[in-house]
Amino acid sequence: MSDPRAIGIFDSGLGGLTVLKTLASEFPQESFLYLGDVARLPYGNKSPETIRKYGEQILRFLVQRNVKMLIIACNTASTVFLDENQFSGLPLFNVIPPGSSAAIESTKNKKIGVIATSTTVKGHAYKKTLEKMDSRVEVLEVACPLFVPLAEEGMVNDEVTQLMVNRYLKNLIAEKIDTLVLGCTHYPILKDDIAKVTGPGIELIESGKVLAKIIKSHFEATKTGAPQNNTAQINICATDVTVQFEEFAKKMMEPRKVGELERVVV
Amino acid sequence: MSDPRAIGIFDSGLGGLTVLKTLASEFPQESFLYLGDVARLPYGNKSPETIRKYGEQILRFLVQRNVKMLIIACNTASTVFLDENQFSGLPLFNVIPPGSSAAIESTKNKKIGVIATSTTVKGHAYKKTLEKMDSRVEVLEVACPLFVPLAEEGMVNDEVTQLMVNRYLKNLIAEKIDTLVLGCTHYPILKDDIAKVTGPGIELIESGKVLAKIIKSHFEATKTGAPQNNTAQINICATDVTVQFEEFAKKMMEPRKVGELERVVV
Repeated sequence: MSDPRAIGIFDSGLGGLTVLKTLASEFPQESFLYLGDVARLPYGNKSPETIRKYGEQILRFLVQRNVKMLIIACNTASTVFLDENQFSGLPLFNVIPPGSSAAIESTKNKKIGVIATSTTVKGHAYKKTLEKMDSRVEVLEVACPLFVPLAEEGMVNDEVTQLMVNRYLKNLIAEKIDTLVLGCTHYPILKDDIAKVTGPGIELIESGKVLAKIIKSHFEATKTGAPQNNTAQINICATDVTVQFEEFAKKMMEPRKVGELERVVV
Repeated sequence: MSDPRAIGIFDSGLGGLTVLKTLASEFPQESFLYLGDVARLPYGNKSPETIRKYGEQILRFLVQRNVKMLIIACNTASTVFLDENQFSGLPLFNVIPPGSSAAIESTKNKKIGVIATSTTVKGHAYKKTLEKMDSRVEVLEVACPLFVPLAEEGMVNDEVTQLMVNRYLKNLIAEKIDTLVLGCTHYPILKDDIAKVTGPGIELIESGKVLAKIIKSHFEATKTGAPQNNTAQINICATDVTVQFEEFAKKMMEPRKVGELERVVV
């Protein structure tokens, strides 16, 4: 039986919109309810306990809004829910296993780089997940704390961003990785700047794209996809609505229309 | 009658430590209780309503801890408490009037630049305060959103910081300002990088230094300074304690010792 209810997605801010965009274009008949925890962003340098508390508050909010599925579109938050596949009885997905399995499929020389926030790197969630999937891989993790503010400021194709990409990736390139996981949902915004440095020899992995495949399989197995004639809506909520967030969200989601941004308390 | 109770100081994160450091060295007999709202930083791109709510929670926390005075050592938070000089019956100081009066004293050509976060600039708190103090001044405000992450990452005397300083200050220098207010308590951390671009012709204003003079006058008028033989303590609390914050705080406060950082819920 098909299920017209929305898919709930959460991120600390606007990075998860890269995942929403990918899923919305992959599943045009699905409705989405996105929540960005803008009032408390960024998560990347907060402690795991704090992130767990915020994450649970937000998942509960989405459950109360009657979504059919929960997606944590934030790598930092994913690290604290890594081994859980449901919450309040709803299926729960995070972005780390999809990104990891795609990296395992991509690598030929078994040298995988992961770039992420400080908290994600310190928790070694990707390293652990990748090594569990294939014990022969060598995983090199690098924190890139300035990438989130650079992405949020829209500094793409920018000299400063280029310098930071060079600085953060220098060692990974010297180590001859052939696959690089963009381990923060903000980073696809800077993909062109990153690709300029990594070149054609290094495959860039965006977890949103792999997540779409996994959700497709889930819908096939559970028959919980929306009906083809569904009136699909994209609604975006945030714990704080700033002009910057609203403009970015609307531009990012084009050509799909989104309703007025709603400010919520979780 | 002298008052041995601590001075309460709050900031969104570690920027206010520049103010704490200045005050602690100016008033060695005073105790200080600092609260950094690390769990919810940065404030600079949040809405005024959200900042007001967080600010009140934190001021109430400091009042409950029995401080004798409240200092908002965060320009963004100062903008939403600008015209208030008490809270719960305690004297309340913020950093905008001190920085403004020092700028008015400094300028000769009446052209003052203000650099600050997006929210501080959008609220025009400095522009309004400066123009009220002297209607002849011309105030040019520029938001420098990347300065907080650059300061938090400790990127001082750095090529990337230098590029961003050049970019943000280019117009102010072209407009021939002779005084520049560092309108965010993080910015003194980058003072050397900023001074390299502004040169000797532009006076840099740090509000913490001016605030110290104002508090000295307040103690003289009210006799509420701590007794000379006071056992002065510096305690630092934060809504989230990260390794980065703890290391930064301890290093910043040297040579004065601080107790173990305390994690609190506000």
